[in-house]
Amino acid sequence: MHVLSINWVKRVTIIYLAEAEGLKETQLSLYFQDISAFDNPNATVIPVAGIVGKAWTFTQFHSAPAQFGTVYITDDYITETSDPKSPEVGRAQGMNVTAGLDGLNSHVMISIVFTNKEYNGSTIQIQGVSKQFEAVREVALVAGTGKFRFARGYATFETYFLDIPAQYSVI
Amino acid sequence: MHVLSINWVKRVTIIYLAEAEGLKETQLSLYFQDISAFDNPNATVIPVAGIVGKAWTFTQFHSAPAQFGTVYITDDYITETSDPKSPEVGRAQGMNVTAGLDGLNSHVMISIVFTNKEYNGSTIQIQGVSKQFEAVREVALVAGTGKFRFARGYATFETYFLDIPAQYSVI
Amino acid sequence: MHVLSINWVKRVTIIYLAEAEGLKETQLSLYFQDISAFDNPNATVIPVAGIVGKAWTFTQFHSAPAQFGTVYITDDYITETSDPKSPEVGRAQGMNVTAGLDGLNSHVMISIVFTNKEYNGSTIQIQGVSKQFEAVREVALVAGTGKFRFARGYATFETYFLDIPAQYSVI
Repeated sequence: MHVLSINWVKRVTIIYLAEAEGLKETQLSLYFQDISAFDNPNATVIPVAGIVGKAWTFTQFHSAPAQFGTVYITDDYITETSDPKSPEVGRAQGMNVTAGLDGLNSHVMISIVFTNKEYNGSTIQIQGVSKQFEAVREVALVAGTGKFRFARGYATFETYFLDIPAQYSVI
Repeated sequence: MHVLSINWVKRVTIIYLAEAEGLKETQLSLYFQDISAFDNPNATVIPVAGIVGKAWTFTQFHSAPAQFGTVYITDDYITETSDPKSPEVGRAQGMNVTAGLDGLNSHVMISIVFTNKEYNGSTIQIQGVSKQFEAVREVALVAGTGKFRFARGYATFETYFLDIPAQYSVI
Repeated sequence: MHVLSINWVKRVTIIYLAEAEGLKETQLSLYFQDISAFDNPNATVIPVAGIVGKAWTFTQFHSAPAQFGTVYITDDYITETSDPKSPEVGRAQGMNVTAGLDGLNSHVMISIVFTNKEYNGSTIQIQGVSKQFEAVREVALVAGTGKFRFARGYATFETYFLDIPAQYSVI
């Protein structure tokens, strides 16, 4: 039996203003390691709800986009570089919803939970629409905790690496 | 077989502060075209999860409000005027949840995705509680992207037009 | 038949900056009355979606944390003091998702809807990750409405009281 597995690395660039730093614009770069796979025990994004009677699929192809109404819960690893074996920075925990009737746009509501030395225990809240088939997708940084208290800004997602037959991939 | 279809037009007034404009308060008016209908291929809001064994219904009647715990995914058209044939401004994509045990309050987490010439590609993020049976409901504008980077503010929803037997309606 | 019921009181401390008050830091203390119970008509938090084939459980034990992917809708009472019979301040309405693969972290997206005299009709929007087994969990205050327009800040959750066999408990 063949298991569909889509593995991406996404480069995430975060630009924010933080009161603590006198409203200086600061930039962070991270890599999300995202494993979208059915029946894969290593999956980091899993569908949990959707329209009754429809397949709750995901894909990276324009010809067969995702199904409107599907709700995914995610816990991606975040690494320092695109290499999945590079040091862990944290996790991206939350929810993505296919909110475009055409299956192309995804509504993202996640927190970045830092576990590295510099920001351990601090978090950043992200909300917005990711247009899955555009090269660069901009979402909003709505708030933060810990070292990111009162932060505001935006973040861009770029697909850095995409591997369909193998067992993982990076956002 | 009779299909229940509730069609609304909602007038949405957005007030925001944007850094780019020297923190000047700016106002935008939009109209959401919302088609809530079971088994209607034109529906723009669809229930995808809820309490097992309960009907995942929606209604506009005090006598039979929505069921607590129901999760709806939405992709409403947004137009310039209340007329559904007026120029398209964008889409309202995201999630509404019936989060009041009495079925009256809905927790809204959506993005307004602009497609018109002036704001094409920019988005606004909305979060808050919509008290379905109040004339004016205020929700928060939590952030934005593109031309709305660093924006903050609030938005009001007013039911402008409500048509139950017909096939669509405007928020 | 034994019904598992977990009742908590959580002390919630909110720190925010509001434009209306000249960006003065303001503090609010509240108590969430949270009743997590299967088949309990008084439950204030109910699972509505999750991984197919998994039990959509919740627990307060490290040895058996919650199931990744479970979506809960919540409408907790909020009171002035930890006593559930103390005056009602409002409700906490929204969604919690078990977004840690290890079942420990919960992604919270809720609104505090005030019903007391001082803030009646105003709301505060909360988003972030609650690390269920840590004594103090910090989440972000992303925005507000009414008297909390343009507010930003953070909030901490502390478990104040936890009662497993009885019929309710406070966050």
